Amino acid sequence: MINVLIWNEFIHEKQQPEVAEIYPKGIHRQIGKYLSADKNISVRYASLDMENCGITKELLEDTDVLIWWGHQAHDKVSDDIVKLCADRINGGMGFIPLHSSHHSKLFKALCGTSCNLKWRHGDRERIWCVNPFHPIAKGIPEQFELPREEMYGEPFDIPNPEEVVFMGWFSGGEVFRSGVTFRRGGGKIFYFQPGHEEYPVYHNENVLKIIANAVKWAAPEARESKNILCTNPEPLEKGLE
Amino acid sequence: MINVLIWNEFIHEKQQPEVAEIYPKGIHRQIGKYLSADKNISVRYASLDMENCGITKELLEDTDVLIWWGHQAHDKVSDDIVKLCADRINGGMGFIPLHSSHHSKLFKALCGTSCNLKWRHGDRERIWCVNPFHPIAKGIPEQFELPREEMYGEPFDIPNPEEVVFMGWFSGGEVFRSGVTFRRGGGKIFYFQPGHEEYPVYHNENVLKIIANAVKWAAPEARESKNILCTNPEPLEKGLE
Amino acid sequence: MINVLIWNEFIHEKQQPEVAEIYPKGIHRQIGKYLSADKNISVRYASLDMENCGITKELLEDTDVLIWWGHQAHDKVSDDIVKLCADRINGGMGFIPLHSSHHSKLFKALCGTSCNLKWRHGDRERIWCVNPFHPIAKGIPEQFELPREEMYGEPFDIPNPEEVVFMGWFSGGEVFRSGVTFRRGGGKIFYFQPGHEEYPVYHNENVLKIIANAVKWAAPEARESKNILCTNPEPLEKGLE
Amino acid sequence: MINVLIWNEFIHEKQQPEVAEIYPKGIHRQIGKYLSADKNISVRYASLDMENCGITKELLEDTDVLIWWGHQAHDKVSDDIVKLCADRINGGMGFIPLHSSHHSKLFKALCGTSCNLKWRHGDRERIWCVNPFHPIAKGIPEQFELPREEMYGEPFDIPNPEEVVFMGWFSGGEVFRSGVTFRRGGGKIFYFQPGHEEYPVYHNENVLKIIANAVKWAAPEARESKNILCTNPEPLEKGLE
Repeated sequence: MINVLIWNEFIHEKQQPEVAEIYPKGIHRQIGKYLSADKNISVRYASLDMENCGITKELLEDTDVLIWWGHQAHDKVSDDIVKLCADRINGGMGFIPLHSSHHSKLFKALCGTSCNLKWRHGDRERIWCVNPFHPIAKGIPEQFELPREEMYGEPFDIPNPEEVVFMGWFSGGEVFRSGVTFRRGGGKIFYFQPGHEEYPVYHNENVLKIIANAVKWAAPEARESKNILCTNPEPLEKGLE
Repeated sequence: MINVLIWNEFIHEKQQPEVAEIYPKGIHRQIGKYLSADKNISVRYASLDMENCGITKELLEDTDVLIWWGHQAHDKVSDDIVKLCADRINGGMGFIPLHSSHHSKLFKALCGTSCNLKWRHGDRERIWCVNPFHPIAKGIPEQFELPREEMYGEPFDIPNPEEVVFMGWFSGGEVFRSGVTFRRGGGKIFYFQPGHEEYPVYHNENVLKIIANAVKWAAPEARESKNILCTNPEPLEKGLE
Repeated sequence: MINVLIWNEFIHEKQQPEVAEIYPKGIHRQIGKYLSADKNISVRYASLDMENCGITKELLEDTDVLIWWGHQAHDKVSDDIVKLCADRINGGMGFIPLHSSHHSKLFKALCGTSCNLKWRHGDRERIWCVNPFHPIAKGIPEQFELPREEMYGEPFDIPNPEEVVFMGWFSGGEVFRSGVTFRRGGGKIFYFQPGHEEYPVYHNENVLKIIANAVKWAAPEARESKNILCTNPEPLEKGLE
Repeated sequence: MINVLIWNEFIHEKQQPEVAEIYPKGIHRQIGKYLSADKNISVRYASLDMENCGITKELLEDTDVLIWWGHQAHDKVSDDIVKLCADRINGGMGFIPLHSSHHSKLFKALCGTSCNLKWRHGDRERIWCVNPFHPIAKGIPEQFELPREEMYGEPFDIPNPEEVVFMGWFSGGEVFRSGVTFRRGGGKIFYFQPGHEEYPVYHNENVLKIIANAVKWAAPEARESKNILCTNPEPLEKGLE
């Protein structure tokens, strides 16, 4: 069983009727509904309006993969919560930041860069799979279209990713590395660009399937954080030789 | 002084009047004319119609960077010539395969993959710089347009490149990793996609400047091949300890 | 079921009594015996003394992972066989070259480099796991010792690997990237250094477990070669836009 | 002219007579003396005992490469100073963290990992160059010995480095990726392991030459931070198409 925790800022859906119409229960519930159809995936939810963002050390230790959607309130997530999550990712938990979470404190802390990019509302995107053998691309066509999506454009200020799985073409003339992987400690990370809140992007079958594939790819073999990488308080007494 | 050898298949220019009009002396001479304006660059030429493709071991040993343009006669380049070049690249010579040279024997031998891609004539390309700090991007704008260019589209079957410097957007809906770097032994490699023979791509100032930047980037510190990596005929007699 | 094909040069075992004593049925049979204990792995064998090295296109198409051990007769493997295997690896088959197979035609063709290294008989090695979260390291201790092993030392002239999983320490004073991964097309590649024929290295439980882990890691999701990357005979007729 | 700023914690040298004997004016002055012999390098110094660690935004903006040595007082460097430095590195400044600076706030912030490792005093190290073509290895022998050095051992919890230039062999049986490169934004980073304060490591000619090479390698083409990657406060008004 893969334990997934979907964290959503959950503000747009409560403040903007047009967003609420697309995601009446929130973006997290929409994604979670799809994932839950897989009997090997168990989904829990957390959001900004909960105490401490709904995140505790115990919860994270029982989580295999953390999905994150944030946008307008990145700063409302405390540094302590960010550190809890970053440490747990280094210990082995998978991490899937979506769309505007490129500017979340957590993703930036793991990247060490600004994660800046170009952006513009109201575009159309075609997503190309550039690595058709990657597990995250399983069952995904060579390319598919998002009739309405916010443009995210290069240069995207991230560290050189380990793999580029998807690239985006925008009708306005831009390109983007839309699906990229990183590893930090034991944690596998997949940043995935689609998902502006005003368009029904998380109703797209391919987008949902990619997220589900990424969950399986990012889930660690064992749930326990490996302490070997997390603490080294004492020096070694003597050498092996 | 950087010694550059520009190799050109040099067939289209002699067989197709419309290509001859764009490149009356050949693609190699057009690129070489631009490079020669830099007094630190010395250019020599070779082509398929010369004996042994105009390539000798001695010439390569006196070359810092090899630029390559081939298209319809890749198979006419002998395996011996390919091996001579590949060995010299491993020994430290820079290598800049252009456009349809993605399917040259030499580039494929260095990649170990098919280097296949999608293609279609008569498109329009916008080239984005995704790594504005890279030396190859020096003085290049954020993006520039090629009003007529052959479409090369993903998936591009190359090994995961060390760096992606440029990405291409095509009006027909495709994307491409248009400028990518690799290293083989001591040889720095920059594959650059623009350059269909029927369009005046190598008259574009940005395209030429990128090639010139790549020459400086790929040139080795010293011209000699390092034998440490080229031969190890005998085992070590005894250990250091 | 993972179909594994173990190819062995199988000369030392027939010519040198001291090697035959360690591997009476050959290195391939020793490794295969261990792998076969896993009921999800099915093993077949091939060797240099068989017609066409015991390798056919049909056999490769029914193979998920190819393990390779060669040493003194690399040149006896024909270029045609090398091309068959390299194409199939690009199409998705996993590949695990062992020890002196660093100089096999096949591994060199996939690398595009000389794959040269330093070497010396009669050393002792300590293998460190530098990426304890990697699937190939599952169940492997932080370090283990090979009381007798041939020294392989840096610089190792390979392309920058995607991952370094193991590093070797030698009593004579050398170091080596002993377990490294690459990808070519859909094929996952794991080069693993241990295995000099004169020492009982493939009787070591950790060495065997690492090879078994690598088989599971390198096995493709589906056995069919993906033609999308293997052929592009015709241009696209028209764009998507 | 390359402007180098060498930051040193500068505590051991004032508190421990045996360290003061090796570095009477501090580790920073010892390294700076060597670098200053190159007339193209200009050196400035800063240390923990200065106001705000001796670091200001203006000083960083006039710096090409920052060298850092810290050990027992990482936490005394304020988060504000760390952010100033990290932002400037992303803007293009080179960064060379030395030895125990693996645990500096600044290096950890750029890595996004724990940067943990094994350690033990009083060992002997042999440093191997695994990438003899790299500019940082220019003029460095294949291997050299540090008769006394603190052991730093794998696993080293860093993101997969872009390049491994040096690897360390320790007499006690450990191995280490001793010289590794990263890039964050425009900033080139070289972590270099040697330099325990109790041993005269920074009197070793090869160690000093490697640091000097790294300074030249890490220095940006232009000193100005590129704002394109540092701010994107406004969306784009309209697309290019």
